[in-house]
Amino acid sequence: MTLTTDFGLRDPFVGLMHGQVLQRHATARIIDLTHGISPQAIDEAGFWLSRSFRYFPMGTVHVAVVDPGVGTDRGIAIVEVAGQVLLAPDNGLLGAVVQRSAGDTIRTRRLAPQILESLGIHDLSATFHGRDLFAPLAGELASGRAAPDTLGPAVSALVAGEACAATVSADGIVGRVVTTDHFGNLLTNVEAEVLARFIDPQVRIGPLELPLRRTYGDVQPGDYVALVNSFGVLEVAQRDGNAAASLAIARGAQVWVRAPKTR
Amino acid sequence: MTLTTDFGLRDPFVGLMHGQVLQRHATARIIDLTHGISPQAIDEAGFWLSRSFRYFPMGTVHVAVVDPGVGTDRGIAIVEVAGQVLLAPDNGLLGAVVQRSAGDTIRTRRLAPQILESLGIHDLSATFHGRDLFAPLAGELASGRAAPDTLGPAVSALVAGEACAATVSADGIVGRVVTTDHFGNLLTNVEAEVLARFIDPQVRIGPLELPLRRTYGDVQPGDYVALVNSFGVLEVAQRDGNAAASLAIARGAQVWVRAPKTR
Amino acid sequence: MTLTTDFGLRDPFVGLMHGQVLQRHATARIIDLTHGISPQAIDEAGFWLSRSFRYFPMGTVHVAVVDPGVGTDRGIAIVEVAGQVLLAPDNGLLGAVVQRSAGDTIRTRRLAPQILESLGIHDLSATFHGRDLFAPLAGELASGRAAPDTLGPAVSALVAGEACAATVSADGIVGRVVTTDHFGNLLTNVEAEVLARFIDPQVRIGPLELPLRRTYGDVQPGDYVALVNSFGVLEVAQRDGNAAASLAIARGAQVWVRAPKTR
Repeated sequence: MTLTTDFGLRDPFVGLMHGQVLQRHATARIIDLTHGISPQAIDEAGFWLSRSFRYFPMGTVHVAVVDPGVGTDRGIAIVEVAGQVLLAPDNGLLGAVVQRSAGDTIRTRRLAPQILESLGIHDLSATFHGRDLFAPLAGELASGRAAPDTLGPAVSALVAGEACAATVSADGIVGRVVTTDHFGNLLTNVEAEVLARFIDPQVRIGPLELPLRRTYGDVQPGDYVALVNSFGVLEVAQRDGNAAASLAIARGAQVWVRAPKTR
Repeated sequence: MTLTTDFGLRDPFVGLMHGQVLQRHATARIIDLTHGISPQAIDEAGFWLSRSFRYFPMGTVHVAVVDPGVGTDRGIAIVEVAGQVLLAPDNGLLGAVVQRSAGDTIRTRRLAPQILESLGIHDLSATFHGRDLFAPLAGELASGRAAPDTLGPAVSALVAGEACAATVSADGIVGRVVTTDHFGNLLTNVEAEVLARFIDPQVRIGPLELPLRRTYGDVQPGDYVALVNSFGVLEVAQRDGNAAASLAIARGAQVWVRAPKTR
Repeated sequence: MTLTTDFGLRDPFVGLMHGQVLQRHATARIIDLTHGISPQAIDEAGFWLSRSFRYFPMGTVHVAVVDPGVGTDRGIAIVEVAGQVLLAPDNGLLGAVVQRSAGDTIRTRRLAPQILESLGIHDLSATFHGRDLFAPLAGELASGRAAPDTLGPAVSALVAGEACAATVSADGIVGRVVTTDHFGNLLTNVEAEVLARFIDPQVRIGPLELPLRRTYGDVQPGDYVALVNSFGVLEVAQRDGNAAASLAIARGAQVWVRAPKTR
């Protein structure tokens, strides 16, 4: 099982989720994928989860809780794809997973609320469904006691998140920074496959215009570099430095790819 | 086993505790409840541990190390309650656990120092008993080799921590912010049971006066909300925002509940 | 298995390493030693790893990834010592482990690149070998399928890191701050064994001159204290405070020990 949240690691919120999983499934294997999602950043959680879940063993249950609608009547989404099960609020979080699974058999469901009672999941607080709903439900799934297809009806579409693809035209791409990582690298929504359509693309972000390189070591320490990173998207970094801090660029900033010639 | 400390996650302090538990109990299940307690904030650790330990399976050993007196002659406290064992410096940390267990059978002990030698726990450093004492001792407890009642004499009272309850009068409550969480929510020492004695309570903190609501979604994005949170205390939050940062309010700030009518 | 990186815990980088270990070794026991190494601080990683790895059970595989040369032709180092296996980029990171193992039998190897293919480790990204190389390789080692001596030729010396020992003369020591910890304590490269050669050493750092004490409780709250810490090095701390913040002293700052008389 993996956990992805915007809970941070300062408080016991994540530890309590672990405890509630163990209450249901004493031998569960729980990996903290990340709890550093920016607060309420549903798209950032979707970005990371969609580019991470395939690195885990078949049958892994992935739970993601970025849940600004907790305590309202928002639903719960369940996605089965590529031998994995993903569980999250039905608020667009799993949209990127669905989009990036175009070639796979995929099943999407919405939790039937009455199922919770039958699983002994009740007395939910109004503000912490990570502990009170998602963790016990994930424990039931991971233990095998609850199969995904018993949890609710198949739905043809989940709630749509905000549009997060870059815009492509004949002469270039307009994208944005989806997340800045621990190193201050700027990760964008510009996909490698889209970049590959252009010859000699030039990347513009803030005051910079950069050619595309392969790795950090291709430039001198302190210099900026644009590359396709290990998650398949355009990234702008400062070698041995922190691009986000040096450039004062944050999540949401625009990036342009100027590419006069297409392949 | 759970671990609660003020060690943070920057350094290998927590990893070393895990290693020392495993040296004693190779199959131990170790959950990091939180390592984000404010440095030396004994009351904050007690707050979180007392409101978290019951969410774990029966028989869990909970270790808490916030230990400004490390290397002095402070004792070690052991508490058995609700099928759980709690271990911490005898500095008031477990006071909140004891207070919130009024209806339970509870046993409190103080570690007999000579026990450590018999368990092969020696050569303690003067500054890191998390690694050198608490982790191996917890490993012995969790493995079942050492039973709590063999570790030291029952004591009628542990060292008292600083008073941390809110003050209640006929026309209201005076409390304080015990901790601010990752989202900047302000968690107070005003208990739900105390609040429930008043009709239409108005919560005053900093420049705000707020009615009591049920969940974050009950107000508009950016607005402030007062509610009873999932840990049973009064919380003040900013929807989709960070109340602590927006209001410049930190741990220790006062909160008043004005409630003209009692039930 | 332990993991030591400069990846931080904000992004899913560490979680992905866990996933890739589990793909190779489903029952692996993985402990996060620390992911808070300063970005690209090879010496800091070596400091912590060399002073931590012996606290883990025999046979533990320790993986350390601080890897500014990722994607270049830097090698991979494998060290066997004291019943443990250590794996890291061959960039000086394991130098401190080797230095501090002078009395032990130690074997040093460099990974033969063609081994990776034979283990099914291929399609490496240019920027994230933690996920693509170190984690699967560690999984193979920890599972017992790959023995260290099959991974590459023994080498007499690994790549040397920057010199990190303090300078000792008849009348004192010149050292530096290797790391500041979560509490703001200043940990130096001045070893206890070196300090022990001097009578009544006086420690000078920033504006302070301090005698050597035993533990934090030996001074008053708010006062500064110099002591030999639980990792065997000179540390300067502020009791119940944050020395790094209060003194505005960071990693790299110099420390002098003035010691008129030697033993």
